[in-house]
Amino acid sequence: MSNKNNLIDNKFRIIISVGDDSGIGPEVILKALFSKEIPKNTDIVIVGSQTNLEKEYSNLKSLGVKNIVDPSDYQIYDIEIPFEINNPKKSNGNASFFYLKKAIEIVQKYPNAALVTGPICKKSWALAGHNYSGQTEFLAESCQAKNVGMLFTAKSPITNWRFNTLLATTHIPLHEVPKQLTTQVIHSKLDLLSEFCKNYVDEPLLKIAGLNPHAGEEGLLGSEEKNWINDAVASWSKKNKGVKLLGPISPDTCWNSSAKAWREKTSPIQDGILAMYHDQGLIPIKVIALNYSVNTTLGLPFIRTSPDHGTGFDIAGRGFAQSQSMVEAIKTAFDLTKDSRLFNAH
Amino acid sequence: MSNKNNLIDNKFRIIISVGDDSGIGPEVILKALFSKEIPKNTDIVIVGSQTNLEKEYSNLKSLGVKNIVDPSDYQIYDIEIPFEINNPKKSNGNASFFYLKKAIEIVQKYPNAALVTGPICKKSWALAGHNYSGQTEFLAESCQAKNVGMLFTAKSPITNWRFNTLLATTHIPLHEVPKQLTTQVIHSKLDLLSEFCKNYVDEPLLKIAGLNPHAGEEGLLGSEEKNWINDAVASWSKKNKGVKLLGPISPDTCWNSSAKAWREKTSPIQDGILAMYHDQGLIPIKVIALNYSVNTTLGLPFIRTSPDHGTGFDIAGRGFAQSQSMVEAIKTAFDLTKDSRLFNAH
Repeated sequence: MSNKNNLIDNKFRIIISVGDDSGIGPEVILKALFSKEIPKNTDIVIVGSQTNLEKEYSNLKSLGVKNIVDPSDYQIYDIEIPFEINNPKKSNGNASFFYLKKAIEIVQKYPNAALVTGPICKKSWALAGHNYSGQTEFLAESCQAKNVGMLFTAKSPITNWRFNTLLATTHIPLHEVPKQLTTQVIHSKLDLLSEFCKNYVDEPLLKIAGLNPHAGEEGLLGSEEKNWINDAVASWSKKNKGVKLLGPISPDTCWNSSAKAWREKTSPIQDGILAMYHDQGLIPIKVIALNYSVNTTLGLPFIRTSPDHGTGFDIAGRGFAQSQSMVEAIKTAFDLTKDSRLFNAH
Repeated sequence: MSNKNNLIDNKFRIIISVGDDSGIGPEVILKALFSKEIPKNTDIVIVGSQTNLEKEYSNLKSLGVKNIVDPSDYQIYDIEIPFEINNPKKSNGNASFFYLKKAIEIVQKYPNAALVTGPICKKSWALAGHNYSGQTEFLAESCQAKNVGMLFTAKSPITNWRFNTLLATTHIPLHEVPKQLTTQVIHSKLDLLSEFCKNYVDEPLLKIAGLNPHAGEEGLLGSEEKNWINDAVASWSKKNKGVKLLGPISPDTCWNSSAKAWREKTSPIQDGILAMYHDQGLIPIKVIALNYSVNTTLGLPFIRTSPDHGTGFDIAGRGFAQSQSMVEAIKTAFDLTKDSRLFNAH
C-alpha cells in the first residue's frame, strides 16, 4: 500500500473491509469492482488478506468466472492473521474482526472517505472472543457514537429520487417492539434522520409511521399513539423548527408516496421516513426498491454501507454469488458522501 | 322493483347496499354506476331509500356534477325508515342496518349474485341498538358463518394477475397480535384462503408470512415460529395435500414476488398469501396495488366486496367524493363470481 502520508488530500476514497474470508465477501468484492457502475476517480482500498484475495481470484478464474478484477491491481491494506487449521471458524472470525478494526482506523484518517463492509459471521466473532452483536455495534464503540441507526436507502433509477427509511427498532421479536419504543428512542432516531437529511437539503420533510393499524384510530386500535407517541412527535417538532415532521401516519398508507415517487416525478415529497419496527420499514423498502436498497449506518463520523446479504457460507467458493448488492453499497457510499455538505469541507 | 319470481334465473346480479345516507355512499354509487368499467349484462339492484337516492341525484346535479346515473333508471329495493329529526345519526344508523339486512336476504335468493356494501357508521348503528363491530360481523351472523376472513384482492391492469392477501388478525393493537395468533386461527384462515383459491385453480400455491423479523431466524429474533408456527404450518399441510403451502417466510421478502408479478408476466406464482397482522398485509397491498385493492369477505355463501374507504362524513354532499374504489368493488364482485367454479353451478 502506498505511504499513508501521500493519501492525505481531498481525493475520494472507499475503504472496503473484506468480511469473513470463508464467505462470499471476497468473491462479491472482486466481481463488484469489475462493474462499470463503480464510480471513477475514486481510490479503492481493500482491507483484508492479500494471500486470500489472490487465492479467491485464482479459484474464480479456474471456475471460468470472467468478469472479475485482479486484486494485485488494487491497493490492499494487507493483514495476515495466523490461521488455526483446527479452528477455521475462529480464525476467520478473528481475521474479519481485525479487517474491520483497521478499516475503521483508515477511513477516519481521511476526509471524503467512506466505509463499505463485507459480511461477517457473528458466531465466528464470538469464537474468537469478539463479543459484539454485529459490525454496527463495534463501529459505534470504535467511534464513540452513542446514537446510531439503521437506515435503508435507495436511489430510483427512474426518477433519481432517494428513498430513505430509518428503523426505530431493529432485530427484535415483534412482541418486544411496543415495549422497546420510548419517547427517548423516537427522539434520538428523529435526530439521526434529520441530521442525515440536513446534509442534503436545508429544511427536510420527515414522516413518522404509527405503531398500530390506522395509527391507533384515536385509541380504538391501540393506545400508544394517543398515550405518548403523539406527544413525542409534538415535543420533538417544537425543538426542531427547521424540520417539517408529519405523523404518526397510518402505517398502511405511509409508504404510498414513496412508491409513487420511485416510479414518477412527483411534487416535493418526504426526505425520510421513521419506521417503528423492522418489517414495517423493510416490507415497503423491498417491495419498492428491491436490489437497489442499501443498509447504511447513521450516527458515525463517516458514511458506512453494506450489502444487504450475509456471508452465504452455503454458496461460497462456487463462483455464482450475486454482486449487485455490493455494487450498490459501493455506489451509495460514494453518492452519499459526494452529495453531502461534508464533502470537501475539511 | 320487478317481481322477485322473474329474477330466479342464472343472470348475474350485483346487490348494492347504500350504507349510511349521510355519508358518501349514495354519491359514490351514482358516480360509480356511470363508469364504463361497470360490467355489462349485469342486473344491478340497489337496496336503500329511493327518496334519498333521488335527493342525492338532484343535489349532485345542482352542484354541476355530470358523470352520474339517474337512480330512477335502476332497480331499487326501496326501504323507507321513519326519520327522527332530533336524532339523525340514530335514524341513518337504523336505515343503513336495514338496507344491509335486506341486501343479505336478496343476494342469498339468487345464484350468481354478489353483494357490494356501501360504508356505514358503527357508532350510528350502536345508537340505533345494532351492536356489531362492523358489517362483516353482522354478515357472518346472518349467514351463520363461523369462520370469516378479510381478504384484500386486486387484479393487475398490466398482467391480469390477481393478488390475494388474507389477514390472520385484523383491527387489533400491534401488541395483541402475538397473543391472538394461535394454531386454530392459522388453520382456519388457511382453510378460508385455500377454499377461496380452489374456486379458481385446482391446486393452489399459498404462502404464509412469519410473525417476527426474518421469520424468527431460528429463534434468535422471536420464538413463535420455532415454538408453534412451524408446527401449525406442517400439520395443516399434512391435512391438505392438494395445496402447496410455503412458509413461514421472512415477512420482508414475502411480497417481493407479488410486486414482480404485478408488473410483469412471471413463472407460476402464489395464489394467495396469509399475513399475520393488518399492517404486514396492508402495507405491501397498498404499495403494490393502490386504488385497485378491494376488501372482500371470505367464508360467506356469496362474494361480498366493499370500497376501501369509510363514510367520509366530512366531505359528504359536496360532490367531490372519489368513486374509483366503488367501481373496483363492483368490478371485483363481478369478476370473483364470474370466474368462480360456483358460477352457473346452481
